[in-house]
Formats: sequence, structure tokens, C-alpha cells
Amino acid sequence: MDSNIVNFIGCDNPYDESKIVLFGAPFDSTTSYRPGTRFASRMIRAESDGLETYSPYLNKDLSDIRVFDAGDLELCFGNTEKALCAIEEMTAQIITDDKLPCMIGGEHLVTLGAVRAVFSKHPDLRVIHFDAHTDLREDYLGEPLSHATVMRRVWDMLGDGKLYQFGIRSGERSEFAWAKKHTYLHPFDFETLEDTVKTLGNVPVYFSLDLDVLDPSVFPGTGTPEPGGVTFDELRRACMLLRGLNVVGFDVNELSPHYDPSGASTAVACKILRELLLLFY
Amino acid sequence: MDSNIVNFIGCDNPYDESKIVLFGAPFDSTTSYRPGTRFASRMIRAESDGLETYSPYLNKDLSDIRVFDAGDLELCFGNTEKALCAIEEMTAQIITDDKLPCMIGGEHLVTLGAVRAVFSKHPDLRVIHFDAHTDLREDYLGEPLSHATVMRRVWDMLGDGKLYQFGIRSGERSEFAWAKKHTYLHPFDFETLEDTVKTLGNVPVYFSLDLDVLDPSVFPGTGTPEPGGVTFDELRRACMLLRGLNVVGFDVNELSPHYDPSGASTAVACKILRELLLLFY
Amino acid sequence: MDSNIVNFIGCDNPYDESKIVLFGAPFDSTTSYRPGTRFASRMIRAESDGLETYSPYLNKDLSDIRVFDAGDLELCFGNTEKALCAIEEMTAQIITDDKLPCMIGGEHLVTLGAVRAVFSKHPDLRVIHFDAHTDLREDYLGEPLSHATVMRRVWDMLGDGKLYQFGIRSGERSEFAWAKKHTYLHPFDFETLEDTVKTLGNVPVYFSLDLDVLDPSVFPGTGTPEPGGVTFDELRRACMLLRGLNVVGFDVNELSPHYDPSGASTAVACKILRELLLLFY
Amino acid sequence: MDSNIVNFIGCDNPYDESKIVLFGAPFDSTTSYRPGTRFASRMIRAESDGLETYSPYLNKDLSDIRVFDAGDLELCFGNTEKALCAIEEMTAQIITDDKLPCMIGGEHLVTLGAVRAVFSKHPDLRVIHFDAHTDLREDYLGEPLSHATVMRRVWDMLGDGKLYQFGIRSGERSEFAWAKKHTYLHPFDFETLEDTVKTLGNVPVYFSLDLDVLDPSVFPGTGTPEPGGVTFDELRRACMLLRGLNVVGFDVNELSPHYDPSGASTAVACKILRELLLLFY
Amino acid sequence: MDSNIVNFIGCDNPYDESKIVLFGAPFDSTTSYRPGTRFASRMIRAESDGLETYSPYLNKDLSDIRVFDAGDLELCFGNTEKALCAIEEMTAQIITDDKLPCMIGGEHLVTLGAVRAVFSKHPDLRVIHFDAHTDLREDYLGEPLSHATVMRRVWDMLGDGKLYQFGIRSGERSEFAWAKKHTYLHPFDFETLEDTVKTLGNVPVYFSLDLDVLDPSVFPGTGTPEPGGVTFDELRRACMLLRGLNVVGFDVNELSPHYDPSGASTAVACKILRELLLLFY
Amino acid sequence: MDSNIVNFIGCDNPYDESKIVLFGAPFDSTTSYRPGTRFASRMIRAESDGLETYSPYLNKDLSDIRVFDAGDLELCFGNTEKALCAIEEMTAQIITDDKLPCMIGGEHLVTLGAVRAVFSKHPDLRVIHFDAHTDLREDYLGEPLSHATVMRRVWDMLGDGKLYQFGIRSGERSEFAWAKKHTYLHPFDFETLEDTVKTLGNVPVYFSLDLDVLDPSVFPGTGTPEPGGVTFDELRRACMLLRGLNVVGFDVNELSPHYDPSGASTAVACKILRELLLLFY
Repeated sequence: MDSNIVNFIGCDNPYDESKIVLFGAPFDSTTSYRPGTRFASRMIRAESDGLETYSPYLNKDLSDIRVFDAGDLELCFGNTEKALCAIEEMTAQIITDDKLPCMIGGEHLVTLGAVRAVFSKHPDLRVIHFDAHTDLREDYLGEPLSHATVMRRVWDMLGDGKLYQFGIRSGERSEFAWAKKHTYLHPFDFETLEDTVKTLGNVPVYFSLDLDVLDPSVFPGTGTPEPGGVTFDELRRACMLLRGLNVVGFDVNELSPHYDPSGASTAVACKILRELLLLFY
Repeated sequence: MDSNIVNFIGCDNPYDESKIVLFGAPFDSTTSYRPGTRFASRMIRAESDGLETYSPYLNKDLSDIRVFDAGDLELCFGNTEKALCAIEEMTAQIITDDKLPCMIGGEHLVTLGAVRAVFSKHPDLRVIHFDAHTDLREDYLGEPLSHATVMRRVWDMLGDGKLYQFGIRSGERSEFAWAKKHTYLHPFDFETLEDTVKTLGNVPVYFSLDLDVLDPSVFPGTGTPEPGGVTFDELRRACMLLRGLNVVGFDVNELSPHYDPSGASTAVACKILRELLLLFY
Repeated sequence: MDSNIVNFIGCDNPYDESKIVLFGAPFDSTTSYRPGTRFASRMIRAESDGLETYSPYLNKDLSDIRVFDAGDLELCFGNTEKALCAIEEMTAQIITDDKLPCMIGGEHLVTLGAVRAVFSKHPDLRVIHFDAHTDLREDYLGEPLSHATVMRRVWDMLGDGKLYQFGIRSGERSEFAWAKKHTYLHPFDFETLEDTVKTLGNVPVYFSLDLDVLDPSVFPGTGTPEPGGVTFDELRRACMLLRGLNVVGFDVNELSPHYDPSGASTAVACKILRELLLLFY
Repeated sequence: MDSNIVNFIGCDNPYDESKIVLFGAPFDSTTSYRPGTRFASRMIRAESDGLETYSPYLNKDLSDIRVFDAGDLELCFGNTEKALCAIEEMTAQIITDDKLPCMIGGEHLVTLGAVRAVFSKHPDLRVIHFDAHTDLREDYLGEPLSHATVMRRVWDMLGDGKLYQFGIRSGERSEFAWAKKHTYLHPFDFETLEDTVKTLGNVPVYFSLDLDVLDPSVFPGTGTPEPGGVTFDELRRACMLLRGLNVVGFDVNELSPHYDPSGASTAVACKILRELLLLFY
Repeated sequence: MDSNIVNFIGCDNPYDESKIVLFGAPFDSTTSYRPGTRFASRMIRAESDGLETYSPYLNKDLSDIRVFDAGDLELCFGNTEKALCAIEEMTAQIITDDKLPCMIGGEHLVTLGAVRAVFSKHPDLRVIHFDAHTDLREDYLGEPLSHATVMRRVWDMLGDGKLYQFGIRSGERSEFAWAKKHTYLHPFDFETLEDTVKTLGNVPVYFSLDLDVLDPSVFPGTGTPEPGGVTFDELRRACMLLRGLNVVGFDVNELSPHYDPSGASTAVACKILRELLLLFY
Repeated sequence: MDSNIVNFIGCDNPYDESKIVLFGAPFDSTTSYRPGTRFASRMIRAESDGLETYSPYLNKDLSDIRVFDAGDLELCFGNTEKALCAIEEMTAQIITDDKLPCMIGGEHLVTLGAVRAVFSKHPDLRVIHFDAHTDLREDYLGEPLSHATVMRRVWDMLGDGKLYQFGIRSGERSEFAWAKKHTYLHPFDFETLEDTVKTLGNVPVYFSLDLDVLDPSVFPGTGTPEPGGVTFDELRRACMLLRGLNVVGFDVNELSPHYDPSGASTAVACKILRELLLLFY
């Protein structure tokens, strides 16, 4: 009799035969306002049963590709650095085994752990970042490690001109000013994304998707909903523009199931995740 | 002293004087994922108090027309065929009395009961189907009668080229392939609807509206929300295109009130139902 | 040690030094369907912590301006006239002190109290009204004071041709007919707003924003959600058109937090309020 | 074809043949804290389908007795006196027709309307009052008509020594002091109820049951939950002690369905109502 | 790298080495009122992380015993007999392998599938049944297979005097009358349980626990909450009385997570399940 | 015009004239399962409006005593030690000013910060601890600072025989074993509390109330509900036994408003807090 294995739909291949490895990073300890993203990966797996494995947009099927779902990391709440190390270690192992890491957050800070591992291997890394928020503070209440500082920490590694931000519509005035000098910040939408993609060629790219880039009408289930965001189709089309890039890692984060009583936000997360798996395979 | 009669707003005419008969089919036994559409008709009646009887879109008022609300059928949960028979019988009686049946689901399978009755009288029937899902499986876990097979069962009766599907964006690859040969499946939107309507002339048409054709931002309150759907105004305008067709029956289904904590989805169902009643009268 | 002062974010200036005075009017006694707007002002203050003080749309910051948050009035539920008097008195005092009143409702009837005070000082007042509903009934179940009659009562003061209504998509047939003779009612959207603004010049204007003008996908958290409304960006842009008018008072009303389990509607209310404060300062 | 009549389970007898008449008084305009009792009667009817008509406690069945369900009064929100008049009128008609009125609130103030009618006919009336709260304030924010003053207004009619209060565990110090002189207030439980019943003999009695007398663990679904209340069985047994009294009217109030997400409070209300109907028939 | 195995806490032993086999039966198609028990087993596993493996009541630990969690059966909604067959087959295999089956429902009808298998092997089977409801109807709307008839179907197999029912407080008058002749029905509580246990000696016993035997204050999360039930400690102590019986199968059913927003009912189900596993090992 | 000061009801005295100082510690970063206690203090203040200032149990009124409400600390999420320092500092200041500190958690770990400050001044401190859980782990996933280790950390300071635990019903086997040697752990209830109080005489006592000592039927709104707890009246009476002790600090923690949709748990927290303020003044 078989054990009870719970996967994201269609991601039931053996590790050795898989090209993408999916894992959850259920961590939200630095979330300053409404916690709960720790429940995202579990909920995404459970609700993925309502999703088809076939994408009529891409005319591809999860059964065509090979993804392994490694389940969730067991992360230590309240000790941020320890949690980031565990994420970094997991990501490093996947890369070492020559597979593509796909992480489900958690709060956005988990991206830092994954980028650390990817950056170790690819020092010329670029990061493409879809988000409502700048995430560029130097610190938050004195803490350098926070969901509000994560892209600043990423910049600490990458340096100027390697972080591309899209959909941004919220932040402190000083963050927007800082971004002007150090990152490519495209506010509100994806208008300049196609051009950006063209310039990137074959350079290694990490893609970080904070789902709150979506308008709260589409994606209410998040800790800090920010009105004025993009529609589902705008996001889906923006993701399709990334096809062809040399993506060496990616994540989807900031779903907070407690704020998603209808399940519609979880359905959005599931569908975007399916599209990304099919796109980046 | 009067008894407590509960109607959809403005549908309080005597049966004999009415041209449209509204009834609820509270059934969701085959729903494979999240049940609850059984509560839709009851909730729609209750919340219709928040709706005006007047449509500024059509400049018509429910007080101008004559609709009778027959309440809900008492359907047997767990015995699908028996439930379908009860729906068929009700629909047949309404047709026999020369009135137009309007059914509130329930899961989408209830449409099969109504179409059986309508098809008996109109063997050259066409069905127009708005939905996010193909609903064209041959069976679901071995069962031929299921919310996921309903349009395949409808096709069993109608035959090739008589089922027109719009807004479809989810299904198995094989369903999309099958549809290419047997139905008119227009994915994602209503772009070709106007042309379809023109070709139909005066042939009898049954209209089945699965409300999950709407984007989950507009209509989160359903069992299987599927992102990437149409807006309310797109749906409303598509419905207006149907005016002039020889509609011999219609239904509105898949509202699941448990997933509608704000009531916004129920409000959408009520408003579309009002528009349809005014359009098809 | 300091007391626990709770403000809308960035509105922590002393009364004497402030140019705008914010206050809450937690009243919903005449709401005929789903009550709960009484909780709006409290929730808006609490959730405003999730908002930044800086607007990237306007490139302005709440720290640039001076707003005092006076907290909530203590209003008497069940005695409508008494509640309106308290609102009128508060508004009058703010005007007397040469400051701009900004009220957070409450049901829409609270607007009447504020307009009474503003009209006393500005007899040539115009009112710009964004709403899904006409609010023009002569009475509601015999009562002249009701959320459904508020704009009729405002018209009683102003007279013909001084009330400008936008976004309206629900009402009785007779209300639409009446509006044709007595108000400027622009249904569904803001198409004619820019022209209206031009005609107003420097005449004193009160701006009343019933948030249900938004589509329920954007703003489900309200007592009577009415599908077919405007998007967040359409509303934000419409508000920006009002810049330059001689606004002598404004309000934001009809958020009902019980119908906003995700908090997305409250976030919308907070963000629009920030934009209005920055615009009308 | 029949209209859609919605009754409390088993209460489907014709008015003329019935001995008890049930009606709803959906009013909560004076509720100072959390409104929503207006939805109680509608919810109680809907959920009564989950209840059996047979009571194994009493070995009696609703099919043995004759109750008519008149539905809900249409009450004017925001005008308290007008609403009370409508309740009084309804109650008076039922009494005139020699039937027993049973009202479902609504906030507790609705009791005043019913007691006015009953008192007109029975000037020697006693009132038995189960509640967590004293409800004995002279006024609330200056208003004499309020859920917090209802029993004081009842006392205005009855006079000293005719109001018997049980289960009380919340109020102002001054209310408890006042009660010592004017009412029989038995705090916390029903200990002295049996003795009270004995003294009442055949004098006409109105019974008003504020369901918040129950502990919030049993009955969370109410506007002002007050910990430390009685259990369901304690309440049921207390009600059984009332058998044999000359009950000339009764009510059950303060269910607030919005605060009852599990439906357990509604189930409690339904079951107690069934028991009372069977007891007082 | 390991796959994502999800168990009830502490039930992570290999099948071959285990003495108890746990499995879920997510089925609720015949539920006539509020569906949702299909989600119980999944939720119980997820929330069991909040439970300790150690019982201070029994001074035993799940790590002392060997239980295998087989996950959930994939059952066909809408086809009741097919679902029951799958349950029967699973139970039969566990018995054949000389292990003790422990099933998590689902609606109560799932018990019939398990009892069929157990009865095949133990024709002298007794069933102990804790429940709020009699479940003894001959049919429900004409259907013999229903949550409301399950114990009548069990009786069809067992015959008179072999079904022991405790805690019953709801049913039709005719069911109570029928029970007097055919079952041992002990209403309201467990008073006579100890005596019953003594008479049973070593005869094979199946234990079916419908969690709605608990008072809704303790266990609101169920489809048909029935006030007047037992407390958690009363149930726990009653279960302890069963220790020493020759239990050949057991189940825990009727948790409906949608009606358990606080998670307290799920915590009750988890804790009772832990106690039963430790007791019956 | 006054600023918007928000207090726990009746706690509106100036700091200098107050004998008790109330403050909130909104921190839950180490919560391993369901976060959200960070919202407790804010919710308790808001909902305290539904509470009377008068206690009929104690015949005392909050208006008789002098309490200052200092609002909430701004704590750093994700950095546990920093948060504990801020709590210690606040507590130390209150003690220095010769006032009694009363803290509203937050997760239970916040107690450690307060006890550190109190222990500094009172090295012979005893701690009385009401809880469902032992909280005695040496570490949690390697972390010494956690809600699951808080009482072990308290013991690190106090030493053997100075920690009195009541109501405990959950923990690891090893924790119960450890407690036998180092603390006074009274499982399940308060039976031995009266005797304990007698032995304590005038020694300084810190009282820490984890509200999950209550049964989840009474208090579902907490992160880890543990069935089998005490009733509200049992807790209230246990608290009354503490009167007369030399209480030098106390806290109330682990309310998690997200799991309290009815508000009943918040009402329990408010009422117990009122009783404690009146008792320890």
C-alpha cells in the first residue's frame, strides 16, 4: 500500500529524472503587517487539484515535462538568518544536481536565500522582479533582513544595473529616488519589459514574482494588497515574454491563504505557477 | 394574514399569467472539488432585494414583464439520475404550458435535465454555452454523469455542430482536440459570438450560462475559479447579443455562496439573471 | 509615557497647524440591507499602516502636508436626525476654523450632515457625486432621511442643476427620469467629468465619493455591491481631474469591513483617501 | 404550480386554524455595537430544515400542533418609533384573533412593541426576561428607545415588582442598584426560577428570551457576547419550568447570523424555538 | 531528495510493520443539508502538526505504536454505491493483512462500506455508535443509501440487538419508536455505556464515532450541529471505557472544515483520533 | 479639538496618577503554527467598548481604580531578542515608576521579556502560569527562544520549585517528566491552586495567563487550540483565588483574532482582563 504523497498537480516525477525541482519555503517571520504566507505552499498543492495540467495558452501539458516536488522546508520561525541558510542550502543542492530550482514562498524575503545560492554559481546574475512594492529599504526598524529590504540585499550582491523591477507602485519616496540610481525600476506596468528582455540575451536570470504585483481584485489574498495593479492576463503575457531567457531559478511568493476565503487567489497562484513551469522547462 | 412567499425580486406574478417560469435546481452531488452550489438559488432570491427591478442598460423593468418563481425542486442528493429526471419533468411541464423555463443551478450537470426536456420538443435544438471549462469529458472517474461531462452528454443528443462554446480556457488536451471535430469551441472570449448569432436565425436555442466564465476577480464565488476570464461588462454585452434569438430555455449556474463572503458574486448572478429575464421575455 | 493615539497614517499634526481635518462618522442606522459601514473609519485607520505616505502617482507625501485626525464622532444609532446634527456641528466648526473637512462614513446619508454645514457658508455650492446608485428617492418606506434619499435631500438645498452625478448604474426608473430634469446624471462612467470640471471654475464644490461606484471586483466590501462599475485606475484618474477645483469639503463612504475579509476594499479606501488628501490640500 | 412559501419547519398551517402565529421583526437600528440581528428570522427559517420536528425531550412533534408563520414585517430602519408601532400593530391583531404571538427578533428593543400590545389587553401583565444584560438604562446617549433601555421601558408600563430577570451578568453599577428596588433581578443563573414560577399562578405572562443569556461558547452568534452564561441544557430546562404558566406572548431575539459562521448559534435558536412552540401551545 | 509525504502526526510507519492502518474516505454526496465533510481527512492531517504525539491522559505516545497512514481513497462523487464499494475493498484488504482499519470520514454513510467488510469476516459483529442523530430512516427521499439511513443499513446486516447507540438526541418520532424494538438506543449521554461494555466481553466490535455527538459549542464544525450534546471530556472518558473491547475496526466522521473557521473542531477531531489510536492499539 | 486616543475601556487615566500600566506586546514571530496574536491588543481595545466597566462578580468598577493604557510597543518582527529587550525595557520603566505592569500579548514568549525585568527587581520571584501547554522545551528546532520554550527560559532565571503551572494538558512526554523534578505542574485543572496560594504568602508573584488554558469551546481564537480545557467560570474563580497575593506583574496572552470570527474569544479576553485589573489593583 502506498504512502500519502502530496504534490503540485502533475509534478510527480522522480528527482533523478526531473529537470525542475519545486519546493516550498514556508516562512513569514519578518512580515510586519499581516502574516500567513507560511501557509501558501501547502494550500497551493492542495488546491492544484482544481487545475488542469494542460495549458491552452501554451498548448503544453505538465505531463510533457518532468518536475519533482520536494515538499516544504522545515524553517525556524523567529530566526531569520537560520531560515535563509536552509533555503540557500536547498537551492544550492538543486543547482549542483543541474536542475532548475522553483521556490514557493513564504514572504518575499525567502528570495534572498535562493538568490544567494544562484549568485554563488552565476556571479553575473540579473534579477527580474515583479512586485507592487520597491522592497529597497536599507533596513526596517533597524533590521537589515526583512520583506521590505529584500531587493536591497539582492542589490548588495548584484551591484548597480542588474536588478529589473516591474509593476512597482508603492514605497517610500527615498526608495524611488534610490532606485533611479541603482536599479531599473519600471513603475505600474510591464511596458518596457519586452525591451529589457531583448537586452539580456543569454545572461543568467533569476525571476522573482511577488504576486501582489497583481491588482487586489485579482489577487486579494496577500499581506499588503496594493490597489492599481495589473490584471491576470497582463501578468500572464508578461511572463510569456520571459520565454527564451536563460532562467536559472525562479520563485512565486506572497500568497497569504487566510486572506483568500474564496480560493480565487490560490487559483491564480496555481495557474501562474503552471504556466511558469511550462515556460521555463 | 399572508404566508411568507419568497421570490426573486419582481417575479411575483401568478403562474397562469406568466410567460417565464423561474425555478431552482439545488444539486451538487457530482461536484468533484468544492461543493456548495446547492445553496445558490436560495441565496440569489434572498439577495435579490438589493437589486433594482429596473435595468438602465435595457431601459426595461421587471414590473413590465410577467415571471413566476416556482421555488426550488427537492432533489435527491447522491442519486444523480433521479435528480436529473426531476429537473426534466419540471422543465417539460413549463414547456407544455407554453412558458419559457429559466433554471438556477446548482452545478452545471443540472443543465442536462433541462436540455433533455427542451430537446424532446425541439429536436433541431442548438445550445449556446458560456463557460471557463470544456465540460466535454466522456466520463469522470468512470461516471458518465458529472459536472465535467455535461456538455458531452448534451452533444450525445444534439450531434455534431450544434453546440457553441464561448469563453473556454480550461480542460484536458484531449477535450480541446475532440471539440475541434464536434463542437464550435471559441476559447477565452466572445469574439466570434456575433457571427454565430447571425447564422442561427430562428432555430430554437437553449442558453446555458456557467458563471465561472467570468474572471474570478468578478465572480470568486464558485467551485472551480479559473483565472483569465471575462469582465462583467463583457458578459453583459455578450448576453445582449443573444437578443433576437429564438431562446426556448436558459439557465444560470455554478454560483457557490460559501465562496462568496462579500456577496459580490451573488450580486453578479442576480444582475445577470435580471438582464436575461428582460432580454428573453 | 504617551497615550495611545490612533491616526490615519501621516495625519498626526496638531489641530491648530492643520489645513485639513479628518473625522469619522460611524453611522449606518438607515441602511436598509446590509449594515456595517459604522466600522469603516476605525478599520481604515488601523489598516492605513499598510499604506505608504508617499504617492508615486502625484509625487507627493503626506509628510508634506498638514492633516489632523479628530477620530470618530459618537453618534446615536436609531435617531437619524440627532446623528445628522452632530455631523453638521462638527463640520461647521472645522469650516469656522478655516480648515477643510474630510469625513469618513458611514452610510451615504452622513453626507447630508456635512453638506448642510458647508451649504450654510456657501449658498452657491455645487456637489460632485460618484456613486453606483442614484440616491434620489423622495422617501424610503415613508422616511425622508435614508441612504437611498440622500442626494434628493441635498438637491432640496441646492436646487436644480447643481448636483453632478457620475458612475450611476442603479436606481428606480422614476429616479432616472427625475434626474433628467433636476441633476446632471452621467451614467456608468466618468466620460463627461473633464468637461464638467471645466464649467465649474472657482465655484465652491463639495465632493462626495460613494466607494460603491467601483466595480465589486475592486471593492466588494460594501453593503450593496453593484456590478458593472469602474476600475481603481479609472476612479483614481477621475479624482485627479478634480484637482484645481475649489473643494470646500469632501467625504469617502460606504466601506463595510464585514464584507471585506481579504482587506482589499479597505486598502482601496485608504489609498483613495491618501490621494484625495494630497490632491485637495 | 405552487409559489415558493418559506416557513419555519413544521409551521405551515393556515392562519385560521392556527393557535400560535410566528412572525419576524428584522430590526436592529439602535444596536450600538455590532448590528446584524435583522438577518436572524430569515436565517432561522432557512436553517430550520436541519432540525427535526420531533422533540425527544418533550416527546411532542410540531406536526401535533398548529402554527402559522406570517413571515417578516417590513420595518423602517432609522425610525425606531415607526418600527415599534408596526410590531405593536401586528401583535395586537394576533391577540385580537385569539392566537398566541411568537416574535423572532431583531435586537431586543423589538420586545417593547410586542409588550405594548400585550399589555393593552392584559394590564396585570408580568414579564419574564432571560438575558445577559440588565437592559435597564433610563436612556442611551440621550435616547429613551434603545436595546439597552428596553426593559426600563417595559417597567414604565408594568410598574414595580412585575419584571423577573434571570441570568443577568452585565450592566452598569447603577442599573443593578436600580433593579434592587424595582425588578426581581436574579443574576447569573436560573436558581430561583422555579420559585418564581410558583408565585405567578395564572397571571398573564410575557416571556422574552434574549439568547445572549447563553454562554458565548454555546451562542457566539450575537452582537454583544458576554462570557459566563448558561449552557444549552440549563436554558432548555429553565424553559421547561415555564410550562403551565399563562403565557400570552413570547419572543426569541438577538441572534446575529454574521457572527455565526459555523451555524451553531442558529441551530441553538431553532431548537429552542421548537421547544418553546411545543411548550406554550 | 525525498518526496512530500503527508501523514497524520506520528503515523509514519511502513505498512508492513504497522498494526493500525489509517485512511480517509472523502465522500459527502448524500449529505442533504450542508456538504463539506469530504475535506475532513485532508484537514485533520494538516492540522495534526499542532497536536503532540503524547497523551497525558493515557501516558502513551504515538511513537510507542505503529500506525500507517494510507492517505485518502479517490471516491466517485454522485455514485454512492461505487464509493461504498471502494471503501469496502480498502477495509477488506486491511483486515486480510491482519491490521486494524481506522477510517476518517466523510459523511456518516461511509461507515456502511467499512462495516460491510468487517461484517464479512465477523458475522457476529456488534456496532457501537456515538451520534446526535438516530440515522435509522428506512430511506431518505426514496433513497436507501443516505447519511440519514446508515445505521438502518447496518442493522439490515447485523439484525436486532446488536447495534448500541449513545448520545442520540435527534430523529423522527418513528425512528425512536423503531429503535425501541431493534437497537439499544441510549439517548442524550453515555450513562449506560459502562454496563454495555461489560456485557460485550470479547465479541468483535466496530466503533463508529459521529463527532456531532459532541455539543456544537465543542464541535461546531459539522453539517448538522445539534445542541444539547456531550462535552469533550465526557466523550474522551466514554472512549476510555471502550478499552479492553475486541475492536475490529473504527471510524471518526462528520467533521466539516468549512464550518470550523477557528480550527477548534479540527483540533477536537485530531485529539480524539490520537486517543483512539492509542486506546485500540 | 482632541486627538483620537484609543484605550481599553475605563483605562483613561494620566500615567502619573495611575497604579497599573497596561501595554500591548504585538509579537508572534516564533509562533510555529498559526500566527496572528500580534493583532490581539489592538482588537481587545476596540472590542472593549462592548464590555461594561462594572463587575457584578467583584462589585467593583474600573472607574474606581486608576489604570493608564500606554498603547502598543513597536516590536521588530523576525528579530526575537530585540523584541524581548523592548518588552523588558518597558516593564522595567513601569516598575521603576512604582506601578504595576500589565501586558497584553502576543505569543507567550513575550512573557520572558516582562519576567526578566520583574526578576531583576525581585530575585525571589515566583511565577504562576495558567496554560494548556507545558512550554518547557529546551529548544524548538534548535532555537532557545520560542513560544514553546518560554517557561523553560523563565525557569533558567527562577530555578527549581518557583514555577507553578496549572491547567496543563499538552506537551512532550519528556517535558512532563522534566517538570516533575523542576516545577510544580498541576495538570488539567486548578484543583491545587488554593493550597498553592496559601503557601506563597507575601512573596512577589508574576502571573502569566495563556488564554488557551480555556477549552476551545470557550476560547477558539488562539493559535493552538487544545481541547479538554477549563470553562470561563473555572478560570474566573481561579483568578479570584489569586487576590491577596503580592502580584508584581501580570500578562494575558495568545488571543489570535483571526481565529475568532464571532468575537467571542475577544470578549473573553476583555472580561478576564477587566477582572484581573480589578483584582490586582
